[in-house]
Amino acid sequence: MTQEVKALQAKTKGDFTSFEHTVITRRDLHPDDVAIDIKYCGICHSDVSMVQWQGSHYPMVPGHEIAGIVTAVGSEVTDLKPGDRVGVGCFVNSCGKCAACKAGQEQFCENGVIMVFESEDYDGTIQKGGYSQAIVVKDHFVLSIPDNLSLADAAPLLCAGVTTYNPLKRYNIGADSKVAIIGLGGLGHIAVQFAAKMGADVTVFGHSESKRDEAQHFGATGYEILKDPEDFQPLQGQYDFILNTLAVDLDLDNYLPLLKLDGVMCYVGIPSDDIHFNLFSIFGNQAKITASNVGGIALTQEMLNFAAEHDIKPQIEMIGIDDVADAYQNILDSKVHYRYVIDMSTLK
Amino acid sequence: MTQEVKALQAKTKGDFTSFEHTVITRRDLHPDDVAIDIKYCGICHSDVSMVQWQGSHYPMVPGHEIAGIVTAVGSEVTDLKPGDRVGVGCFVNSCGKCAACKAGQEQFCENGVIMVFESEDYDGTIQKGGYSQAIVVKDHFVLSIPDNLSLADAAPLLCAGVTTYNPLKRYNIGADSKVAIIGLGGLGHIAVQFAAKMGADVTVFGHSESKRDEAQHFGATGYEILKDPEDFQPLQGQYDFILNTLAVDLDLDNYLPLLKLDGVMCYVGIPSDDIHFNLFSIFGNQAKITASNVGGIALTQEMLNFAAEHDIKPQIEMIGIDDVADAYQNILDSKVHYRYVIDMSTLK
Repeated sequence: MTQEVKALQAKTKGDFTSFEHTVITRRDLHPDDVAIDIKYCGICHSDVSMVQWQGSHYPMVPGHEIAGIVTAVGSEVTDLKPGDRVGVGCFVNSCGKCAACKAGQEQFCENGVIMVFESEDYDGTIQKGGYSQAIVVKDHFVLSIPDNLSLADAAPLLCAGVTTYNPLKRYNIGADSKVAIIGLGGLGHIAVQFAAKMGADVTVFGHSESKRDEAQHFGATGYEILKDPEDFQPLQGQYDFILNTLAVDLDLDNYLPLLKLDGVMCYVGIPSDDIHFNLFSIFGNQAKITASNVGGIALTQEMLNFAAEHDIKPQIEMIGIDDVADAYQNILDSKVHYRYVIDMSTLK
Repeated sequence: MTQEVKALQAKTKGDFTSFEHTVITRRDLHPDDVAIDIKYCGICHSDVSMVQWQGSHYPMVPGHEIAGIVTAVGSEVTDLKPGDRVGVGCFVNSCGKCAACKAGQEQFCENGVIMVFESEDYDGTIQKGGYSQAIVVKDHFVLSIPDNLSLADAAPLLCAGVTTYNPLKRYNIGADSKVAIIGLGGLGHIAVQFAAKMGADVTVFGHSESKRDEAQHFGATGYEILKDPEDFQPLQGQYDFILNTLAVDLDLDNYLPLLKLDGVMCYVGIPSDDIHFNLFSIFGNQAKITASNVGGIALTQEMLNFAAEHDIKPQIEMIGIDDVADAYQNILDSKVHYRYVIDMSTLK
């Protein structure tokens, strides 16, 4: 039986004032489906980008950081039951058969991963995201939220959390690692916590004194203000891993020599312009430059468990459903203090 | 007792016509030194670069691909004796105490690796390289040349060999690997042999049909001519590792998507201009871009043993000492057919 649920949709591409209440239809449960009452949904910079310029299916219901309670399950679902606390992140379907899917990297599904909103699913349906009262999702893509992690705190972890946890894990960050995090925003403040709890010595690279105390609060032992070339000089060869959480143009010829031999610099944001550097900047340390793109389902569950175990949580600002347009503008203006979460009980 | 030996020196920066015969002094043997009669010396593109624009100590005796016979050893040398077939590569001293030296990566010595020519050694001496009759080198930096590898063939391996062997080993190329080599020149033709003998499926990326047969001769199973964007399309996601042996500007946004998930593209030549690409080109495969810089002493010995065991040898063109200036010009004009080696018996 399909379900009609309230939702917030962006009616027009690039126009935040076009957000309006609507009613959407959630599908009848397939045998492997889970129905979820959505309690909270985080707002991510990529929601904003999608509404503003990347989307192609309007009206669009964004939202890919979804936390809620199971209300019903399909006949073949055995690991979840009504009442369970669950989350849904960036994607809700993949082929399950390709090498990437089999390796638990559903985000790179060779037959096309299906995002929680905006994607056209294999059956032709256009997905509608988490700015809504309820959602129906295939069980494989539903995460369990550990007891000691609140639903509201869990929401942003489902994207921002796994986006930062994935590269830290993939590059074996641990007690012997010296890590630098560029930027202390929505992604950076979570990355600092993960890296610190993995045992690393964490330094935040900032542009001003204003975030020094907060960096320390999240677990950083170092804070460096890097503006002029001479600021970089004393830090050469110091870091195993630099995670760049900013989607801005950096002078990489200053940053790359800060890496130790065989060190890694990883982007989790994508600047619109090309990145560029001189190879001499990595010829003395054989450093690697790479990017990381969210993370698979198994890793996302591992990340939630790790966060719960180590008391890692995003710093969130709770808003109502009718604050979304303002929140989007604040994100664009860099006025968000870490991460917005929508209290979905305000959607009436 | 110091030794006066004949040598060929470049008298003036940037002027190949300034090559002239001279006599240089080799030091008296320290307890850990080895004296070597030089039989062959390879010519590398970096010799040319050094004479042409990088050098700072003229007159300069280039040459860092040295093969010869031990004539005498210092009192503390136990692993080499007169008559032994030996080689000397890019460097002849390092501190031996820093993390890089202890890790067998002398080329990244934190106190400054001493190159076989042009470097100022720790005692203030300016090193003179292999375009000479004899050399005295600390035993740690002297390689043993296996019996079934000729001295002439060994010479180019001491730089070009380890430069290509190092990244292939570091990124675990083996029977399951699909490798592409960009360029089939002095470095590329050796890289193809190493990768093939490591068990990899090797493809050469070229710009014309002219090298297809030669690529196959060296062990490549594939040959792709890549010029226009549509040439790249069918190869997307195919390669674990791409080794770029060319120091030229590449359209990386075409090349990077050819890598599999978590694949690596490695430069062993350094273009003078910045490299640049859009991060979207690696956001779908989390590929890494890196560079590799020769290799440590232990790895160089391993490479020589591997080459001997698998009958890997550079394709060389033997020249006399008075052909060096012409050879340099041919290298600049891309007219060298793989690798020049100087027969040092012609230095009289």
